[in-house]
Amino acid sequence: MNRDRQAVSVLGLGSMGSALAAALLDRGHPATVWNRSADKARPLADRGARPAATAEEAIVASPLVIACVLDYDALHAVLDPIAGSLAGKTLVNLTSGSPEQAREAAAWARSHGADYLDGAIMTTPPGVGSADMMFLYSGEQAVFEAHRPTLAALGDPLHLGTDPGLASLYDAALLGLMWATMTGWLHGTALVGAEKTPATAFTPVAIRWLTAVAGFLTTYAPQVDAGRYPGDDATVDVQIAAIGHLIHAAAARGIDNALPELLKSAMERASSAGHGSDSYASVIEVLRNPSDGA
Amino acid sequence: MNRDRQAVSVLGLGSMGSALAAALLDRGHPATVWNRSADKARPLADRGARPAATAEEAIVASPLVIACVLDYDALHAVLDPIAGSLAGKTLVNLTSGSPEQAREAAAWARSHGADYLDGAIMTTPPGVGSADMMFLYSGEQAVFEAHRPTLAALGDPLHLGTDPGLASLYDAALLGLMWATMTGWLHGTALVGAEKTPATAFTPVAIRWLTAVAGFLTTYAPQVDAGRYPGDDATVDVQIAAIGHLIHAAAARGIDNALPELLKSAMERASSAGHGSDSYASVIEVLRNPSDGA
Repeated sequence: MNRDRQAVSVLGLGSMGSALAAALLDRGHPATVWNRSADKARPLADRGARPAATAEEAIVASPLVIACVLDYDALHAVLDPIAGSLAGKTLVNLTSGSPEQAREAAAWARSHGADYLDGAIMTTPPGVGSADMMFLYSGEQAVFEAHRPTLAALGDPLHLGTDPGLASLYDAALLGLMWATMTGWLHGTALVGAEKTPATAFTPVAIRWLTAVAGFLTTYAPQVDAGRYPGDDATVDVQIAAIGHLIHAAAARGIDNALPELLKSAMERASSAGHGSDSYASVIEVLRNPSDGA
Repeated sequence: MNRDRQAVSVLGLGSMGSALAAALLDRGHPATVWNRSADKARPLADRGARPAATAEEAIVASPLVIACVLDYDALHAVLDPIAGSLAGKTLVNLTSGSPEQAREAAAWARSHGADYLDGAIMTTPPGVGSADMMFLYSGEQAVFEAHRPTLAALGDPLHLGTDPGLASLYDAALLGLMWATMTGWLHGTALVGAEKTPATAFTPVAIRWLTAVAGFLTTYAPQVDAGRYPGDDATVDVQIAAIGHLIHAAAARGIDNALPELLKSAMERASSAGHGSDSYASVIEVLRNPSDGA
Protein backbone atom coordinates (compact mmCIF):
# COMPACT_ATOMS: atom_id res chain seq x y z
CA MET A 1 0.00 0.00 0.00
CA ASN A 2 1.02 3.53 -0.74
CA ARG A 3 -0.41 6.37 1.35
CA ASP A 4 -0.37 8.88 -1.52
CA ARG A 5 -2.56 6.61 -3.63
CA GLN A 6 -6.30 7.17 -3.43
CA ALA A 7 -8.27 4.71 -1.32
CA VAL A 8 -10.84 2.77 -3.34
CA SER A 9 -13.68 0.47 -2.37
CA VAL A 10 -14.81 -2.30 -4.71
CA LEU A 11 -18.35 -3.68 -4.48
CA GLY A 12 -18.80 -7.07 -6.16
CA LEU A 13 -16.02 -9.64 -6.30
CA GLY A 14 -16.94 -11.87 -9.19
CA SER A 15 -14.05 -12.69 -11.52
CA MET A 16 -14.10 -9.14 -12.94
CA GLY A 17 -14.55 -7.31 -9.62
CA SER A 18 -11.75 -9.39 -8.10
CA ALA A 19 -9.47 -8.51 -11.03
CA LEU A 20 -10.25 -4.79 -10.53
CA ALA A 21 -9.43 -4.97 -6.81
CA ALA A 22 -6.24 -6.91 -7.50
CA ALA A 23 -5.10 -4.33 -10.08
CA LEU A 24 -5.68 -1.52 -7.58
CA LEU A 25 -3.70 -3.39 -4.89
CA ASP A 26 -0.89 -4.02 -7.40
CA ARG A 27 -0.58 -0.27 -7.94
CA GLY A 28 -0.48 0.43 -4.21
CA HIS A 29 -4.03 1.70 -3.69
CA PRO A 30 -5.55 1.01 -0.28
CA ALA A 31 -8.56 -1.13 -1.22
CA THR A 32 -11.64 -2.07 0.75
CA VAL A 33 -13.62 -4.92 -0.78
CA TRP A 34 -17.10 -6.28 -0.29
CA ASN A 35 -19.08 -9.13 -1.79
CA ARG A 36 -22.49 -10.58 -0.94
CA SER A 37 -20.84 -13.93 -0.20
CA ALA A 38 -17.85 -13.04 1.93
CA ASP A 39 -15.57 -15.93 0.90
CA LYS A 40 -14.74 -14.11 -2.38
CA ALA A 41 -12.90 -11.47 -0.31
CA ARG A 42 -10.42 -13.87 1.19
CA PRO A 43 -7.84 -14.10 -1.67
CA LEU A 44 -7.86 -10.29 -1.88
CA ALA A 45 -7.45 -9.93 1.90
CA ASP A 46 -4.38 -12.16 1.57
CA ARG A 47 -3.01 -9.58 -0.90
CA GLY A 48 -3.64 -6.66 1.48
CA ALA A 49 -7.25 -5.64 0.85
CA ARG A 50 -9.49 -4.77 3.79
CA PRO A 51 -12.70 -6.84 3.70
CA ALA A 52 -15.80 -4.88 4.74
CA ALA A 53 -18.58 -6.66 6.61
CA THR A 54 -21.28 -4.68 4.79
CA ALA A 55 -21.56 -2.70 1.55
CA GLU A 56 -22.21 0.43 3.63
CA GLU A 57 -18.98 -0.10 5.56
CA ALA A 58 -17.14 -0.37 2.23
CA ILE A 59 -18.68 2.86 0.90
CA VAL A 60 -17.80 4.78 4.04
CA ALA A 61 -14.18 3.59 3.83
CA SER A 62 -13.16 5.36 0.57
CA PRO A 63 -13.93 8.51 -1.43
CA LEU A 64 -14.10 6.42 -4.64
CA VAL A 65 -16.45 3.44 -4.89
CA ILE A 66 -16.29 1.06 -7.86
CA ALA A 67 -19.31 -1.18 -8.37
CA CYS A 68 -19.10 -4.26 -10.60
CA VAL A 69 -22.02 -6.58 -9.93
CA LEU A 70 -24.08 -8.97 -12.06
CA ASP A 71 -26.68 -6.50 -13.36
CA TYR A 72 -28.68 -3.42 -12.44
CA ASP A 73 -31.14 -5.41 -10.34
CA ALA A 74 -28.22 -6.56 -8.19
CA LEU A 75 -26.82 -3.01 -8.15
CA HIS A 76 -30.04 -1.49 -6.86
CA ALA A 77 -30.54 -4.32 -4.35
CA VAL A 78 -27.15 -3.44 -2.85
CA LEU A 79 -27.23 0.36 -3.05
CA ASP A 80 -30.86 1.48 -2.65
CA PRO A 81 -31.09 0.66 1.09
CA ILE A 82 -27.84 2.54 1.83
CA ALA A 83 -28.10 5.38 -0.70
CA GLY A 84 -27.52 7.99 1.99
CA SER A 85 -23.97 6.73 2.56
CA LEU A 86 -22.99 7.79 -1.01
CA ALA A 87 -23.26 11.53 -0.32
CA GLY A 88 -19.95 13.18 -1.16
CA LYS A 89 -18.53 10.03 -2.76
CA THR A 90 -17.80 9.22 -6.39
CA LEU A 91 -19.52 6.12 -7.69
CA VAL A 92 -17.89 4.48 -10.72
CA ASN A 93 -20.35 1.95 -12.06
CA LEU A 94 -18.80 -0.81 -14.17
CA THR A 95 -21.92 -3.00 -14.08
CA SER A 96 -23.06 -4.04 -17.58
CA GLY A 97 -26.39 -2.67 -18.71
CA SER A 98 -28.17 -0.43 -21.16
CA PRO A 99 -27.55 3.29 -21.78
CA GLU A 100 -30.97 3.97 -20.24
CA GLN A 101 -30.03 2.09 -17.07
CA ALA A 102 -26.78 4.05 -16.87
CA ARG A 103 -28.60 7.37 -17.23
CA GLU A 104 -31.10 6.41 -14.51
CA ALA A 105 -28.27 5.34 -12.20
CA ALA A 106 -26.50 8.67 -12.80
CA ALA A 107 -29.64 10.62 -11.92
CA TRP A 108 -30.20 8.42 -8.88
CA ALA A 109 -26.62 8.95 -7.66
CA ARG A 110 -26.85 12.72 -8.16
CA SER A 111 -30.12 12.78 -6.18
CA HIS A 112 -28.18 11.26 -3.28
CA GLY A 113 -25.32 13.74 -3.51
CA ALA A 114 -22.82 11.46 -5.27
CA ASP A 115 -20.70 12.08 -8.34
CA TYR A 116 -21.13 9.37 -10.96
CA LEU A 117 -19.21 7.86 -13.83
CA ASP A 118 -20.46 4.99 -15.90
CA GLY A 119 -17.90 2.64 -17.38
CA ALA A 120 -17.40 -0.35 -19.64
CA ILE A 121 -14.48 -2.76 -19.41
CA MET A 122 -13.20 -3.72 -22.87
CA THR A 123 -11.20 -6.77 -21.81
CA THR A 124 -11.56 -10.04 -19.93
CA PRO A 125 -10.45 -10.35 -16.27
CA PRO A 126 -6.89 -11.47 -17.17
CA GLY A 127 -6.47 -8.25 -19.19
CA VAL A 128 -7.35 -5.94 -16.28
CA GLY A 129 -4.35 -3.87 -15.17
CA SER A 130 -2.83 -3.69 -18.67
CA ALA A 131 -2.39 -0.23 -20.19
CA ASP A 132 -3.18 -1.79 -23.59
CA MET A 133 -6.77 -2.46 -22.57
CA MET A 134 -9.50 0.16 -22.94
CA PHE A 135 -11.80 1.18 -20.12
CA LEU A 136 -14.55 3.44 -21.44
CA TYR A 137 -16.10 6.11 -19.21
CA SER A 138 -18.93 8.60 -19.58
CA GLY A 139 -20.18 11.31 -17.25
CA GLU A 140 -18.92 14.68 -16.03
CA GLN A 141 -15.49 15.53 -17.44
CA ALA A 142 -14.26 17.04 -14.15
CA VAL A 143 -15.17 13.88 -12.24
CA PHE A 144 -13.32 11.78 -14.78
CA GLU A 145 -10.24 14.01 -14.67
CA ALA A 146 -10.19 13.94 -10.85
CA HIS A 147 -10.06 10.14 -10.82
CA ARG A 148 -8.14 9.44 -14.01
CA PRO A 149 -4.88 8.56 -12.20
CA THR A 150 -6.69 5.93 -10.12
CA LEU A 151 -8.69 4.59 -13.05
CA ALA A 152 -5.41 4.20 -14.97
CA ALA A 153 -4.54 1.36 -12.57
CA LEU A 154 -7.28 -0.72 -14.22
CA GLY A 155 -6.44 -0.07 -17.88
CA ASP A 156 -6.26 2.82 -20.33
CA PRO A 157 -9.15 5.15 -19.36
CA LEU A 158 -10.99 6.85 -22.26
CA HIS A 159 -13.60 9.53 -21.62
CA LEU A 160 -16.34 9.41 -24.26
CA GLY A 161 -18.50 12.36 -23.21
CA THR A 162 -20.75 13.72 -20.51
CA ASP A 163 -23.86 11.65 -21.35
CA PRO A 164 -23.59 8.78 -18.83
CA GLY A 165 -25.17 6.40 -21.35
CA LEU A 166 -22.27 6.61 -23.81
CA ALA A 167 -20.04 3.97 -22.21
CA SER A 168 -22.85 1.38 -22.34
CA LEU A 169 -23.73 2.41 -25.88
CA TYR A 170 -20.13 2.01 -27.07
CA ASP A 171 -19.86 -1.25 -25.12
CA ALA A 172 -22.86 -2.71 -26.95
CA ALA A 173 -21.58 -1.45 -30.31
CA LEU A 174 -18.07 -2.83 -29.75
CA LEU A 175 -19.29 -6.20 -28.49
CA GLY A 176 -21.48 -6.43 -31.60
CA LEU A 177 -18.38 -5.82 -33.71
CA MET A 178 -16.57 -8.52 -31.70
CA TRP A 179 -19.28 -11.16 -32.15
CA ALA A 180 -19.56 -10.42 -35.86
CA THR A 181 -15.78 -10.58 -36.28
CA MET A 182 -15.39 -13.75 -34.20
CA THR A 183 -18.22 -15.48 -36.07
CA GLY A 184 -16.81 -14.44 -39.44
CA TRP A 185 -13.46 -15.81 -38.31
CA LEU A 186 -15.03 -19.08 -37.15
CA HIS A 187 -16.86 -19.44 -40.48
CA GLY A 188 -13.61 -18.91 -42.36
CA THR A 189 -11.78 -21.25 -40.00
CA ALA A 190 -14.42 -23.92 -40.65
CA LEU A 191 -14.06 -23.37 -44.41
CA VAL A 192 -10.28 -23.77 -44.57
CA GLY A 193 -10.49 -26.47 -41.88
CA ALA A 194 -12.60 -28.54 -44.26
CA GLU A 195 -9.43 -28.73 -46.40
CA LYS A 196 -7.26 -29.69 -43.40
CA THR A 197 -5.84 -26.23 -42.71
CA PRO A 198 -5.43 -25.86 -38.91
CA ALA A 199 -6.98 -22.84 -37.19
CA THR A 200 -3.52 -21.98 -35.91
CA ALA A 201 -2.28 -21.71 -39.52
CA PHE A 202 -5.22 -19.64 -40.77
CA THR A 203 -5.50 -17.27 -37.80
CA PRO A 204 -2.21 -15.33 -38.16
CA VAL A 205 -3.18 -14.61 -41.78
CA ALA A 206 -6.68 -13.62 -40.64
CA ILE A 207 -5.28 -11.27 -38.00
CA ARG A 208 -2.96 -9.65 -40.50
CA TRP A 209 -5.92 -9.26 -42.86
CA LEU A 210 -7.87 -7.52 -40.08
CA THR A 211 -5.20 -4.81 -40.19
CA ALA A 212 -6.06 -4.22 -43.84
CA VAL A 213 -9.78 -4.30 -42.97
CA ALA A 214 -9.14 -1.66 -40.29
CA GLY A 215 -7.71 0.48 -43.09
CA PHE A 216 -10.98 0.10 -45.01
CA LEU A 217 -12.93 1.20 -41.90
CA THR A 218 -10.73 4.29 -41.64
CA THR A 219 -11.52 5.06 -45.29
CA TYR A 220 -15.24 4.44 -44.83
CA ALA A 221 -15.84 6.34 -41.55
CA PRO A 222 -15.78 9.82 -43.16
CA GLN A 223 -18.02 8.47 -45.95
CA VAL A 224 -20.60 7.51 -43.30
CA ASP A 225 -20.40 10.95 -41.69
CA ALA A 226 -20.76 12.62 -45.09
CA GLY A 227 -23.56 10.31 -46.23
CA ARG A 228 -21.71 9.81 -49.54
CA TYR A 229 -20.02 6.52 -50.37
CA PRO A 230 -17.78 6.71 -53.46
CA GLY A 231 -17.07 3.15 -54.60
CA ASP A 232 -13.57 3.83 -55.87
CA ASP A 233 -11.97 0.75 -54.33
CA ALA A 234 -14.71 -1.88 -54.48
CA THR A 235 -18.43 -1.48 -55.08
CA VAL A 236 -21.36 -3.20 -53.38
CA ASP A 237 -22.16 -4.96 -56.66
CA VAL A 238 -18.59 -6.30 -56.89
CA GLN A 239 -18.88 -7.58 -53.31
CA ILE A 240 -22.22 -9.26 -54.12
CA ALA A 241 -20.50 -11.17 -56.93
CA ALA A 242 -17.58 -12.11 -54.66
CA ILE A 243 -19.69 -13.37 -51.75
CA GLY A 244 -21.20 -15.88 -54.15
CA HIS A 245 -17.80 -17.64 -54.26
CA LEU A 246 -17.78 -17.87 -50.45
CA ILE A 247 -21.32 -19.21 -50.22
CA HIS A 248 -20.65 -21.75 -52.94
CA ALA A 249 -17.36 -22.94 -51.41
CA ALA A 250 -18.84 -23.21 -47.90
CA ALA A 251 -22.01 -24.98 -49.07
CA ALA A 252 -19.89 -27.54 -50.93
CA ARG A 253 -18.18 -28.32 -47.62
CA GLY A 254 -21.36 -28.65 -45.54
CA ILE A 255 -20.83 -25.43 -43.56
CA ASP A 256 -23.72 -23.35 -42.21
CA ASN A 257 -24.10 -20.34 -44.51
CA ALA A 258 -26.60 -18.31 -42.50
CA LEU A 259 -24.04 -15.57 -41.83
CA PRO A 260 -22.81 -15.00 -45.41
CA GLU A 261 -26.40 -15.33 -46.71
CA LEU A 262 -27.46 -12.56 -44.32
CA LEU A 263 -24.50 -10.39 -45.36
CA LYS A 264 -25.33 -10.95 -49.03
CA SER A 265 -28.94 -10.01 -48.37
CA ALA A 266 -27.85 -6.75 -46.70
CA MET A 267 -25.66 -5.96 -49.72
CA GLU A 268 -28.51 -6.75 -52.12
CA ARG A 269 -30.83 -4.45 -50.20
CA ALA A 270 -28.21 -1.71 -50.41
CA SER A 271 -27.88 -2.31 -54.16
CA SER A 272 -31.68 -2.24 -54.59
CA ALA A 273 -31.75 1.05 -52.68
CA GLY A 274 -29.41 2.56 -55.30
CA HIS A 275 -26.00 1.84 -53.76
CA GLY A 276 -24.76 -0.81 -56.19
CA SER A 277 -21.91 1.41 -57.41
CA ASP A 278 -21.18 2.77 -53.92
CA SER A 279 -18.70 1.44 -51.38
CA TYR A 280 -19.60 -1.12 -48.72
CA ALA A 281 -20.08 1.72 -46.24
CA SER A 282 -23.42 2.44 -47.94
CA VAL A 283 -24.81 -0.73 -46.33
CA ILE A 284 -25.30 1.42 -43.20
CA GLU A 285 -28.24 3.04 -44.98
CA VAL A 286 -30.24 -0.21 -44.95
CA LEU A 287 -29.22 -0.99 -41.35
CA ARG A 288 -30.54 2.40 -40.27
CA ASN A 289 -33.68 2.09 -42.38
CA PRO A 290 -34.68 -1.57 -42.26
CA SER A 291 -37.57 -1.09 -44.71
CA ASP A 292 -35.32 0.25 -47.51
CA GLY A 293 -34.95 -2.05 -50.46
CA ALA A 294 -37.09 -4.74 -48.82
CA MET B 1 13.37 -0.71 -67.03
CA ASN B 2 16.08 -2.81 -65.57
CA ARG B 3 17.60 -5.62 -67.60
CA ASP B 4 18.27 -7.87 -64.59
CA ARG B 5 14.60 -7.82 -63.63
CA GLN B 6 12.42 -10.61 -64.98
CA ALA B 7 10.19 -9.71 -67.90
CA VAL B 8 6.50 -10.13 -67.11
CA SER B 9 3.36 -10.06 -69.23
CA VAL B 10 0.05 -8.98 -67.75
CA LEU B 11 -3.23 -10.14 -69.30
CA GLY B 12 -6.25 -8.08 -68.27
CA LEU B 13 -6.01 -4.36 -67.55
CA GLY B 14 -9.02 -3.61 -65.41
CA SER B 15 -8.29 -1.47 -62.36
CA MET B 16 -6.54 -4.39 -60.62
CA GLY B 17 -4.60 -5.63 -63.65
CA SER B 18 -3.47 -2.07 -64.42
CA ALA B 19 -2.29 -1.67 -60.80
CA LEU B 20 -0.31 -4.92 -61.08
CA ALA B 21 1.38 -3.78 -64.31
CA ALA B 22 2.15 -0.37 -62.83
CA ALA B 23 3.74 -1.93 -59.73
CA LEU B 24 5.95 -4.11 -61.94
CA LEU B 25 7.01 -1.10 -64.01
CA ASP B 26 7.74 0.85 -60.82
CA ARG B 27 10.17 -1.87 -59.75
CA GLY B 28 11.92 -1.87 -63.12
CA HIS B 29 10.42 -5.03 -64.64
CA PRO B 30 10.05 -5.03 -68.42
CA ALA B 31 6.29 -5.43 -68.79
CA THR B 32 4.19 -6.42 -71.78
CA VAL B 33 0.50 -5.71 -71.38
CA TRP B 34 -2.65 -6.83 -73.14
CA ASN B 35 -6.32 -6.14 -72.73
CA ARG B 36 -9.35 -7.10 -74.84
CA SER B 37 -10.08 -3.39 -75.36
CA ALA B 38 -6.72 -1.90 -76.24
CA ASP B 39 -7.34 1.62 -74.87
CA LYS B 40 -6.67 0.35 -71.32
CA ALA B 41 -3.03 -0.23 -72.31
CA ARG B 42 -2.34 3.41 -73.21
CA PRO B 43 -1.63 4.83 -69.70
CA LEU B 44 0.72 1.90 -69.05
CA ALA B 45 2.45 2.36 -72.39
CA ASP B 46 3.07 5.97 -71.33
CA ARG B 47 4.87 4.56 -68.26
CA GLY B 48 7.06 2.25 -70.33
CA ALA B 49 4.98 -0.89 -70.86
CA ARG B 50 4.95 -2.60 -74.23
CA PRO B 51 1.38 -3.10 -75.46
CA ALA B 52 0.80 -6.42 -77.23
CA ALA B 53 -1.65 -6.61 -80.11
CA THR B 54 -2.85 -10.07 -79.06
CA ALA B 55 -2.86 -12.17 -75.90
CA GLU B 56 -0.62 -14.69 -77.68
CA GLU B 57 1.93 -11.98 -78.49
CA ALA B 58 1.92 -11.02 -74.80
CA ILE B 59 2.47 -14.62 -73.67
CA VAL B 60 5.36 -15.12 -76.09
CA ALA B 61 7.05 -11.94 -74.82
CA SER B 62 7.82 -13.06 -71.21
CA PRO B 63 8.61 -16.21 -69.23
CA LEU B 64 6.11 -15.14 -66.52
CA VAL B 65 2.50 -14.41 -67.43
CA ILE B 66 0.11 -12.87 -64.89
CA ALA B 67 -3.59 -13.15 -65.69
CA CYS B 68 -6.13 -10.97 -63.91
CA VAL B 69 -9.42 -10.97 -65.76
CA LEU B 70 -13.09 -10.76 -64.73
CA ASP B 71 -13.74 -14.43 -64.07
CA TYR B 72 -12.87 -17.96 -65.25
CA ASP B 73 -15.15 -17.72 -68.27
CA ALA B 74 -13.15 -14.72 -69.44
CA LEU B 75 -9.89 -16.51 -68.59
CA HIS B 76 -10.75 -19.55 -70.70
CA ALA B 77 -12.07 -17.39 -73.52
CA VAL B 78 -8.65 -15.71 -73.70
CA LEU B 79 -6.36 -18.69 -73.10
CA ASP B 80 -8.03 -21.78 -74.53
CA PRO B 81 -7.48 -20.82 -78.20
CA ILE B 82 -3.78 -20.09 -77.58
CA ALA B 83 -3.00 -22.77 -74.98
CA GLY B 84 -0.04 -24.02 -76.99
CA SER B 85 1.82 -20.73 -76.49
CA LEU B 86 1.99 -21.38 -72.71
CA ALA B 87 4.43 -24.32 -73.00
CA GLY B 88 7.52 -23.57 -70.91
CA LYS B 89 5.94 -20.47 -69.34
CA THR B 90 4.76 -19.87 -65.79
CA LEU B 91 1.14 -18.76 -65.50
CA VAL B 92 0.24 -16.86 -62.32
CA ASN B 93 -3.52 -16.67 -62.20
CA LEU B 94 -4.91 -13.86 -60.04
CA THR B 95 -8.44 -14.16 -61.41
CA SER B 96 -11.05 -14.56 -58.65
CA GLY B 97 -12.86 -17.87 -58.52
CA SER B 98 -13.48 -21.03 -56.54
CA PRO B 99 -10.88 -23.53 -55.30
CA GLU B 100 -12.32 -26.02 -57.78
CA GLN B 101 -11.82 -23.59 -60.68
CA ALA B 102 -8.24 -22.98 -59.55
CA ARG B 103 -7.51 -26.72 -59.44
CA GLU B 104 -8.97 -27.21 -62.91
CA ALA B 105 -6.92 -24.31 -64.26
CA ALA B 106 -3.77 -25.79 -62.71
CA ALA B 107 -4.42 -29.17 -64.36
CA TRP B 108 -5.21 -27.47 -67.65
CA ALA B 109 -1.99 -25.42 -67.54
CA ARG B 110 0.09 -28.51 -66.69
CA SER B 111 -1.50 -30.37 -69.60
CA HIS B 112 -0.17 -27.62 -71.87
CA GLY B 113 3.34 -27.71 -70.42
CA ALA B 114 3.05 -24.61 -68.23
CA ASP B 115 3.91 -24.14 -64.57
CA TYR B 116 1.02 -22.67 -62.59
CA LEU B 117 0.45 -20.67 -59.43
CA ASP B 118 -2.93 -19.56 -58.26
CA GLY B 119 -3.13 -16.33 -56.30
CA ALA B 120 -5.44 -14.03 -54.38
CA ILE B 121 -4.87 -10.30 -53.94
CA MET B 122 -5.73 -9.21 -50.40
CA THR B 123 -5.96 -5.50 -51.09
CA THR B 124 -7.66 -3.00 -53.36
CA PRO B 125 -5.88 -1.57 -56.45
CA PRO B 126 -4.42 1.43 -54.56
CA GLY B 127 -2.73 -1.02 -52.13
CA VAL B 128 -0.91 -2.94 -54.87
CA GLY B 129 2.85 -2.45 -54.64
CA SER B 130 2.88 -2.08 -50.85
CA ALA B 131 4.88 -4.64 -48.87
CA ASP B 132 2.22 -4.39 -46.13
CA MET B 133 -0.37 -6.05 -48.35
CA MET B 134 -0.71 -9.81 -48.62
CA PHE B 135 -0.73 -11.69 -51.91
CA LEU B 136 -1.64 -15.33 -51.29
CA TYR B 137 -0.30 -18.06 -53.58
CA SER B 138 -0.78 -21.79 -53.87
CA GLY B 139 0.84 -24.36 -56.13
CA GLU B 140 4.27 -25.95 -56.43
CA GLN B 141 6.73 -24.60 -53.88
CA ALA B 142 9.64 -24.55 -56.37
CA VAL B 143 7.64 -22.48 -58.87
CA PHE B 144 6.73 -20.02 -56.12
CA GLU B 145 10.35 -19.75 -54.95
CA ALA B 146 11.59 -19.18 -58.50
CA HIS B 147 9.26 -16.20 -58.96
CA ARG B 148 9.10 -14.86 -55.40
CA PRO B 149 11.40 -11.86 -56.14
CA THR B 150 9.16 -10.76 -59.00
CA LEU B 151 5.93 -11.39 -57.07
CA ALA B 152 7.34 -9.26 -54.23
CA ALA B 153 6.94 -6.24 -56.53
CA LEU B 154 3.16 -6.60 -56.14
CA GLY B 155 2.94 -7.04 -52.36
CA ASP B 156 4.09 -9.44 -49.67
CA PRO B 157 3.89 -12.92 -51.25
CA LEU B 158 2.73 -15.75 -48.94
CA HIS B 159 2.84 -19.36 -50.09
CA LEU B 160 -0.01 -21.36 -48.52
CA GLY B 161 0.72 -24.85 -49.87
CA THR B 162 0.91 -26.97 -52.99
CA ASP B 163 -2.85 -27.48 -53.47
CA PRO B 164 -3.66 -24.81 -56.10
CA GLY B 165 -7.12 -24.34 -54.52
CA LEU B 166 -5.76 -22.96 -51.25
CA ALA B 167 -5.37 -19.33 -52.33
CA SER B 168 -9.01 -19.16 -53.45
CA LEU B 169 -10.14 -20.97 -50.31
CA TYR B 170 -8.28 -18.52 -48.05
CA ASP B 171 -9.53 -15.63 -50.19
CA ALA B 172 -13.16 -16.67 -49.63
CA ALA B 173 -12.57 -17.24 -45.91
CA LEU B 174 -10.83 -13.88 -45.45
CA LEU B 175 -13.42 -11.95 -47.45
CA GLY B 176 -16.12 -13.55 -45.28
CA LEU B 177 -14.26 -12.30 -42.22
CA MET B 178 -14.07 -8.85 -43.84
CA TRP B 179 -17.78 -8.62 -44.65
CA ALA B 180 -18.74 -9.84 -41.16
CA THR B 181 -16.36 -7.35 -39.55
CA MET B 182 -17.43 -4.43 -41.76
CA THR B 183 -21.12 -5.16 -41.17
CA GLY B 184 -20.60 -5.48 -37.40
CA TRP B 185 -18.77 -2.16 -37.53
CA LEU B 186 -21.56 -0.53 -39.56
CA HIS B 187 -24.17 -1.85 -37.09
CA GLY B 188 -22.20 -0.40 -34.17
CA THR B 189 -21.65 2.83 -36.09
CA ALA B 190 -25.40 3.10 -36.70
CA LEU B 191 -26.04 2.44 -32.98
CA VAL B 192 -23.71 5.14 -31.64
CA GLY B 193 -24.69 7.38 -34.55
CA ALA B 194 -28.28 7.31 -33.29
CA GLU B 195 -26.91 9.22 -30.27
CA LYS B 196 -25.01 11.71 -32.47
CA THR B 197 -21.59 10.07 -32.22
CA PRO B 198 -19.81 10.52 -35.59
CA ALA B 199 -18.39 7.46 -37.32
CA THR B 200 -15.01 9.18 -37.27
CA ALA B 201 -15.17 9.31 -33.43
CA PHE B 202 -16.31 5.71 -32.99
CA THR B 203 -14.00 4.12 -35.57
CA PRO B 204 -10.60 4.69 -33.90
CA VAL B 205 -12.02 3.07 -30.74
CA ALA B 206 -13.44 0.22 -32.83
CA ILE B 207 -10.08 -0.32 -34.55
CA ARG B 208 -8.25 -0.38 -31.25
CA TRP B 209 -10.86 -2.86 -29.97
CA LEU B 210 -10.17 -5.09 -33.00
CA THR B 211 -6.62 -5.46 -31.68
CA ALA B 212 -8.06 -6.91 -28.47
CA VAL B 213 -10.40 -9.12 -30.52
CA ALA B 214 -7.37 -10.38 -32.48
CA GLY B 215 -5.95 -11.44 -29.12
CA PHE B 216 -9.10 -13.49 -28.48
CA LEU B 217 -8.71 -15.17 -31.88
CA THR B 218 -5.12 -16.08 -31.01
CA THR B 219 -6.40 -17.64 -27.77
CA TYR B 220 -9.21 -19.49 -29.50
CA ALA B 221 -7.33 -20.90 -32.53
CA PRO B 222 -5.59 -23.70 -30.57
CA GLN B 223 -8.93 -24.45 -28.88
CA VAL B 224 -10.46 -25.03 -32.33
CA ASP B 225 -7.58 -27.33 -33.33
CA ALA B 226 -7.90 -29.27 -30.06
CA GLY B 227 -11.70 -29.44 -30.21
CA ARG B 228 -11.82 -28.29 -26.58
CA TYR B 229 -13.03 -24.80 -25.63
CA PRO B 230 -12.38 -23.92 -21.98
CA GLY B 231 -14.56 -20.90 -21.12
CA ASP B 232 -12.11 -19.33 -18.69
CA ASP B 233 -12.48 -15.79 -19.98
CA ALA B 234 -16.11 -15.56 -21.08
CA THR B 235 -18.61 -18.32 -21.72
CA VAL B 236 -21.18 -18.65 -24.49
CA ASP B 237 -23.96 -18.24 -21.91
CA VAL B 238 -22.41 -14.96 -20.68
CA GLN B 239 -22.24 -13.73 -24.30
CA ILE B 240 -25.90 -14.69 -24.84
CA ALA B 241 -26.86 -12.50 -21.89
CA ALA B 242 -24.68 -9.65 -23.15
CA ILE B 243 -25.99 -9.65 -26.73
CA GLY B 244 -29.44 -9.03 -25.28
CA HIS B 245 -28.23 -5.52 -24.28
CA LEU B 246 -27.10 -4.85 -27.86
CA ILE B 247 -30.33 -6.08 -29.42
CA HIS B 248 -32.40 -4.05 -26.97
CA ALA B 249 -30.37 -0.87 -27.47
CA ALA B 250 -30.40 -1.17 -31.27
CA ALA B 251 -34.12 -2.01 -31.45
CA ALA B 252 -34.91 1.05 -29.32
CA ARG B 253 -33.11 3.16 -31.95
CA GLY B 254 -34.85 1.61 -34.99
CA ILE B 255 -31.77 -0.22 -36.27
CA ASP B 256 -32.00 -3.48 -38.23
CA ASN B 257 -31.11 -6.30 -35.82
CA ALA B 258 -30.89 -9.20 -38.28
CA LEU B 259 -27.12 -9.55 -37.72
CA PRO B 260 -27.10 -9.64 -33.88
CA GLU B 261 -30.22 -11.84 -33.89
CA LEU B 262 -28.40 -14.32 -36.15
CA LEU B 263 -25.29 -14.21 -33.92
CA LYS B 264 -27.46 -14.77 -30.83
CA SER B 265 -29.14 -17.72 -32.53
CA ALA B 266 -25.75 -19.30 -33.32
CA MET B 267 -24.71 -18.86 -29.67
CA GLU B 268 -27.99 -20.39 -28.47
CA ARG B 269 -27.51 -23.38 -30.75
CA ALA B 270 -24.00 -23.83 -29.34
CA SER B 271 -25.41 -23.61 -25.81
CA SER B 272 -28.14 -26.15 -26.65
CA ALA B 273 -25.46 -28.46 -28.03
CA GLY B 274 -23.75 -28.44 -24.62
CA HIS B 275 -21.31 -25.50 -25.05
CA GLY B 276 -22.95 -22.99 -22.68
CA SER B 277 -19.96 -23.02 -20.33
CA ASP B 278 -17.42 -23.15 -23.16
CA SER B 279 -15.70 -20.24 -24.90
CA TYR B 280 -17.08 -18.53 -28.00
CA ALA B 281 -14.77 -20.71 -30.11
CA SER B 282 -17.20 -23.59 -29.55
CA VAL B 283 -19.66 -21.87 -31.90
CA ILE B 284 -17.60 -23.41 -34.73
CA GLU B 285 -19.19 -26.75 -33.83
CA VAL B 286 -22.63 -25.55 -34.94
CA LEU B 287 -21.23 -23.86 -38.05
CA ARG B 288 -19.63 -27.15 -39.08
CA ASN B 289 -22.72 -29.18 -38.20
CA PRO B 290 -25.70 -27.01 -39.09
CA SER B 291 -28.23 -29.53 -37.70
CA ASP B 292 -26.73 -29.44 -34.16
CA GLY B 293 -28.92 -27.82 -31.55
CA ALA B 294 -31.52 -26.91 -34.19
